[in-house]
Amino acid sequence: MATHRFRPTRYFNTIGTAEPCLRLADGDTLITDTIDASGLDAHEVAVASRPNPMTGPFFIEGAEPGDTLAVRIERLTPSRATGWTYSPLAPTVLDPPAFAAQPARERHVWEIDSPAGVVRLQQPAPGLEGFAPAIEPMIGCFGVAPAGGQALSTATSAQNGGNMDYRLFAPGTTAWFPVSVPGALFYLGDGHACQGDGEIVGTGIETSFEMQVSFQVLKRTIAWPRGETAEDIFTVGNARPLDQALQHATTEMVRWLGEDYGLDARSASHLLGQVVRYDVGNVFNPAFTVACRVAKKWLTKG
Amino acid sequence: MATHRFRPTRYFNTIGTAEPCLRLADGDTLITDTIDASGLDAHEVAVASRPNPMTGPFFIEGAEPGDTLAVRIERLTPSRATGWTYSPLAPTVLDPPAFAAQPARERHVWEIDSPAGVVRLQQPAPGLEGFAPAIEPMIGCFGVAPAGGQALSTATSAQNGGNMDYRLFAPGTTAWFPVSVPGALFYLGDGHACQGDGEIVGTGIETSFEMQVSFQVLKRTIAWPRGETAEDIFTVGNARPLDQALQHATTEMVRWLGEDYGLDARSASHLLGQVVRYDVGNVFNPAFTVACRVAKKWLTKG
Amino acid sequence: MATHRFRPTRYFNTIGTAEPCLRLADGDTLITDTIDASGLDAHEVAVASRPNPMTGPFFIEGAEPGDTLAVRIERLTPSRATGWTYSPLAPTVLDPPAFAAQPARERHVWEIDSPAGVVRLQQPAPGLEGFAPAIEPMIGCFGVAPAGGQALSTATSAQNGGNMDYRLFAPGTTAWFPVSVPGALFYLGDGHACQGDGEIVGTGIETSFEMQVSFQVLKRTIAWPRGETAEDIFTVGNARPLDQALQHATTEMVRWLGEDYGLDARSASHLLGQVVRYDVGNVFNPAFTVACRVAKKWLTKG
Amino acid sequence: MATHRFRPTRYFNTIGTAEPCLRLADGDTLITDTIDASGLDAHEVAVASRPNPMTGPFFIEGAEPGDTLAVRIERLTPSRATGWTYSPLAPTVLDPPAFAAQPARERHVWEIDSPAGVVRLQQPAPGLEGFAPAIEPMIGCFGVAPAGGQALSTATSAQNGGNMDYRLFAPGTTAWFPVSVPGALFYLGDGHACQGDGEIVGTGIETSFEMQVSFQVLKRTIAWPRGETAEDIFTVGNARPLDQALQHATTEMVRWLGEDYGLDARSASHLLGQVVRYDVGNVFNPAFTVACRVAKKWLTKG
Repeated sequence: MATHRFRPTRYFNTIGTAEPCLRLADGDTLITDTIDASGLDAHEVAVASRPNPMTGPFFIEGAEPGDTLAVRIERLTPSRATGWTYSPLAPTVLDPPAFAAQPARERHVWEIDSPAGVVRLQQPAPGLEGFAPAIEPMIGCFGVAPAGGQALSTATSAQNGGNMDYRLFAPGTTAWFPVSVPGALFYLGDGHACQGDGEIVGTGIETSFEMQVSFQVLKRTIAWPRGETAEDIFTVGNARPLDQALQHATTEMVRWLGEDYGLDARSASHLLGQVVRYDVGNVFNPAFTVACRVAKKWLTKG
Repeated sequence: MATHRFRPTRYFNTIGTAEPCLRLADGDTLITDTIDASGLDAHEVAVASRPNPMTGPFFIEGAEPGDTLAVRIERLTPSRATGWTYSPLAPTVLDPPAFAAQPARERHVWEIDSPAGVVRLQQPAPGLEGFAPAIEPMIGCFGVAPAGGQALSTATSAQNGGNMDYRLFAPGTTAWFPVSVPGALFYLGDGHACQGDGEIVGTGIETSFEMQVSFQVLKRTIAWPRGETAEDIFTVGNARPLDQALQHATTEMVRWLGEDYGLDARSASHLLGQVVRYDVGNVFNPAFTVACRVAKKWLTKG
Repeated sequence: MATHRFRPTRYFNTIGTAEPCLRLADGDTLITDTIDASGLDAHEVAVASRPNPMTGPFFIEGAEPGDTLAVRIERLTPSRATGWTYSPLAPTVLDPPAFAAQPARERHVWEIDSPAGVVRLQQPAPGLEGFAPAIEPMIGCFGVAPAGGQALSTATSAQNGGNMDYRLFAPGTTAWFPVSVPGALFYLGDGHACQGDGEIVGTGIETSFEMQVSFQVLKRTIAWPRGETAEDIFTVGNARPLDQALQHATTEMVRWLGEDYGLDARSASHLLGQVVRYDVGNVFNPAFTVACRVAKKWLTKG
Repeated sequence: MATHRFRPTRYFNTIGTAEPCLRLADGDTLITDTIDASGLDAHEVAVASRPNPMTGPFFIEGAEPGDTLAVRIERLTPSRATGWTYSPLAPTVLDPPAFAAQPARERHVWEIDSPAGVVRLQQPAPGLEGFAPAIEPMIGCFGVAPAGGQALSTATSAQNGGNMDYRLFAPGTTAWFPVSVPGALFYLGDGHACQGDGEIVGTGIETSFEMQVSFQVLKRTIAWPRGETAEDIFTVGNARPLDQALQHATTEMVRWLGEDYGLDARSASHLLGQVVRYDVGNVFNPAFTVACRVAKKWLTKG
């Protein structure tokens, strides 16, 4: 149950099977640095290239193909005082004529006011003079090596995780990933200081972080990423269109309700029919992300 | 500002331009009865046919094409002690092989325990012995006459509203609809005692209701339904796939933020990028429904 | 087996259950006039409004709900010497940034040179100086009253036909429609002198026509439009996205192969797997159209 | 302009940046062996694993990032006398209830009768006693290393090609791929003796081949695969849903018409609006494939 402090010197734009940068035991904790989506580090120095350069991969001892890697997100601390976003809205979220009428894409800087716990646009925007939403840090892109020797761009996501940009991948959440190679090969990066549903400007507030996570190897098999917060369990589907992402997430939730909570197909439908919540992680990346979420208050371990 | 108590004797399976059943003044309140999605009334007598037989249409004096009809949902009281759902999950929410493995469709009865404020399955289901979510009544299908002389099935939805099955169409919400004909011609029905996101078993808990709503004619033009709750404003898009419904809703929200809150395209993107929420109204009907929602605490009337 | 010459004086922008303009017997032939998509008649006089004003409805005696109306397209003769199109390409067929970079929408006039059998742009376009594709007339929008008392905009299409904009609805083709009301109530219009796959500029070459069709009532039930040409049989699905339209069309073809050609699910899959052709009718209208087509040379009446 | 005869001894299930198996000069011809989608060679011996094991990669001298690799398909000769397919139809092409009613998936063997030039089911299927479509060989999966260090499963396709399963990738066609790494790194395999549109049983008639192709490096940049046959030029988009694949293909065609044929946005729309053809390559794989095709008779080199 050691804690490792790792300082990366190289970064990856694919999640694949690169040589591990560090080996950790099952149960260990990792504290490491991540750089922002465009490769800027804590000093705003460009140390890597787009898209979403990853820290890693980390080899988790004992993780074998068919297992599940549970990653508890313990702490996400921005490592500089600014982040950036794009404007205007992405083409995926507007009717085409409305998109065609938007102004050109620009990059905007936000102040990350950690003492006050809020973010603020550096240049005031009309009508948003007092706009200062809370810092709600999250991991945009993380996951494990995919199956079959693939190396997938960190622009996208799949069954192994990746660029899901889902705001509940936040401190206190434990994320589960399906392991396809020995050691799992875990990558992480692309932290956001804040982000609404859907990552609809194509970014959260992109910045560098010090991230602390801990690992646990579960001897069970899953098909898509899962997660647990203080209040909810959720499953994640990554695909286009949103419909298909939602199908993957719901199918995975039905499996989970059967495995751990003793619900057959009908019982699962009764439960989900009345209390399910769907979240749109991202509707911007090559694969969109939908989460299927259920409050734990409705569930009893079967 | 009169209150009208209307008892329907005929019902409609399309939202179109039928002869009005009642004329109300701008500002009036309506108390009326609705029957369930299959045509059962408060006595569980079949008085109309599927799908979603509507009470109405109500002619609202002063409503002209190009106006907006604001409908405040004041009270939704179930008028019988049971409702029903389908199981298992709908084909639209499962991966095809998972859907193919589901059991056959069945109808299930729920008790609506109004004193306790909860619903319960009449026949216990394995693993759900104590499952009793709160009664959270909502209107599944309501809206106004569509443009161009159309008459649209109450199975589906469009710019004029219809079968959106969105759980925030609930008491305390004011819904806005774009008026296309003199008097607007408002229809309502298909009440649910409870429903999760997406209406993923193909129903909420379907039952008959006494519904109380009040009307206000706004001399402004909208393109898609809008709504306001105590905490949020939201816009609604109805289409397939979910992506397109989301595009309609987001585009309508951008218009609203410009019209009422002084936000240009960039400011709207800054706001929505950090705080937008997307809700899946339904992912079952011929048109899917997505709502784009923003907390009012972020907004200042422009 | 009479031939009727009908001159319309009113037109419809929905396909619904309007009062019939003419009653014909099973087996009769109809010669009538249609106006263009914007309401211009043979003299380029605006006699009706958009979208796609229809001639009809025609009551076919003996057609009952559950039957099929077979409509043989015998002749489509342009009734004026010009037609029009839009440019540039529609937003539905371009990547969003490419659409945003297109010039503004314009209307362009084409000469319909019937003696030469070709169409030509009236104003030459750069690089298209000699471009003169053959006149290949087709019906853009036709169909029968939909089920359940609906009246559907002639901008869209559904199980009852409508604005499918499929270029094989051409002389020599027999189209089948599912009958939902007594007399079927057949509407037609929106003729095109020429059109590629997908109607990707949002129009064919829109012009007025004299159309000749003959009717036959079939005592059999279908779910989606079907058609037969000299060489092929085809089925038509109308929905968004294209995937769903293709699913409707393929499902209907599997039914047809079972009903008439003795092919079970496996045999149908063997046949279609090797010889099926898919055509994109339109990828522009609210509902997209995909046809599933099989050459008759592969088929033996079962 | 040498001709190389290469006999593979290892195969790849991703298209990435593996060590080249052979280096060829610009202009050279390659004759090589490919095994079937499940890894069976000319002797029906399993020599590799699913999905779609590839022969290659071939390093083409002179090919640099930003170039285009033109691959002329000169000859595709089945190297054994049988192939196989699946039945019934895939879930992606049927309405969900129709898919749920299909029989279980089976593997079926076809005789490849090269002297007669036809394929035939080994076990007759009801109603298909005389069914013997022509051998029309095609390449299911081929392409070059993708950008950014990715390694993509041969189950899917992307801008670099891959598992497109488009029946016009046949003898006489020249396919163009965008080069992302020095030497292009070309892979090929997954030959089909025959296949309809869409690969709707999830396979063509899968068999091993001797394939002959020749290479040419073009100093021009493309974004998506392109092709040329005796009669047509075409562009290929790979994505889900079909709508997005069609958008990629059409956008690439508009670029091509501008680059080589002097057509601006309006002229391209006039041409495509009247004569474009869309083909569904596959509607089965993780990415669907749509081709946008134009007959060369309409084109004049600009």
